[in-house]
Amino acid sequence: MPIKARIPLTTISRLSVYLRSFQLAQREGHETLSSQELEERTGINAAQVRKDLAYFGQFGRRGVGYAADKLSLKISAILGLDRDWAVAIIGAGRLGQALMQYGGFKRMRFRIAAAFDSDEEKQGWEVEGVRIEPLSALAETARAKGIEIAIITVPADAAQDCAALAVAAGIPAILNFSPARLSLPAGVALRDVDFTSELEALTFVLKTRKD
Amino acid sequence: MPIKARIPLTTISRLSVYLRSFQLAQREGHETLSSQELEERTGINAAQVRKDLAYFGQFGRRGVGYAADKLSLKISAILGLDRDWAVAIIGAGRLGQALMQYGGFKRMRFRIAAAFDSDEEKQGWEVEGVRIEPLSALAETARAKGIEIAIITVPADAAQDCAALAVAAGIPAILNFSPARLSLPAGVALRDVDFTSELEALTFVLKTRKD
Repeated sequence: MPIKARIPLTTISRLSVYLRSFQLAQREGHETLSSQELEERTGINAAQVRKDLAYFGQFGRRGVGYAADKLSLKISAILGLDRDWAVAIIGAGRLGQALMQYGGFKRMRFRIAAAFDSDEEKQGWEVEGVRIEPLSALAETARAKGIEIAIITVPADAAQDCAALAVAAGIPAILNFSPARLSLPAGVALRDVDFTSELEALTFVLKTRKD
Repeated sequence: MPIKARIPLTTISRLSVYLRSFQLAQREGHETLSSQELEERTGINAAQVRKDLAYFGQFGRRGVGYAADKLSLKISAILGLDRDWAVAIIGAGRLGQALMQYGGFKRMRFRIAAAFDSDEEKQGWEVEGVRIEPLSALAETARAKGIEIAIITVPADAAQDCAALAVAAGIPAILNFSPARLSLPAGVALRDVDFTSELEALTFVLKTRKD
């Protein structure tokens, strides 16, 4: 499907935002959203919305808007959300356990199927029905459960080793919550989550107001 | 300073990424980074890097690159990171406590100065030297400690009420980790963190590869 190759990654992030808006609109009983309403809900300006949604051949009808059900399905399919994904948590500390309980994952068909921690005290604990296992079990469990994404929630100094274990276990994608910069083989998809950059977007706004 | 008004918010997010790269480069002993090196470190393509850094009048010298120390200072100032920011956590569950311990905040001059939870059992606990207080103390503590940002880490059904308390306490910016869509007065800066959209960027890549 050549259409996908043309979608830039920054658009992909916005697609997630639109998807959430269309899904919420459906729950609220709205059948359509105009680009203007999407702007109000997402903060992304209407012209950008129209441009993004045009990438995959969807045009809102003037005075009617985008059909929430159709767009939800279409964006879900583009993002690969039309099936379940088995996810492993590596590092079952406070953040790891918070993610194991995070309701939003289930709604989007992300299934936390395994969790690992080097701390023997935590091994054997169950969080949301998932038993925390030692890191030595990662390769076997990852294969048995078909894990495709590893979420790294260990301290910075352990992150590279844990990522290497995940790669060795054949896990093709890593979401890294640690502040470490990971060095991975080219074939592994990587995304870093940085809580400070979220705060920085706010301080920029606050600072700009005061100037 | 009119220059700032011209910087789009998507650029601001990338500035955070560049800042982290320049700071890391300095810790690694590199004095400069070229746009090509920035591309390798951040995944943002070199042409975009040059365009972004040109917004505030910085041009890398050909064959030399951008000076890491100057750019760190300049970007920090633009993002408002040249001073401390007092932050409150509202909702001291697993995620809230994980954020209270998050090392990255301190490094960027974000100080978790207060934490609140409706659960009486948690009230009085200390995490990283910060005592968890009841929500009824929010207004007084926020004023006493000069809180400028509230991080909302409560369940979805409590998020709007907690945000309203923060606004009533005069807190001008909210970082919302709950899946709830908050309705706030126009003057309050809001940013939503959605863990699922991070995973969706990965599933998009994985899916695109298989097609």
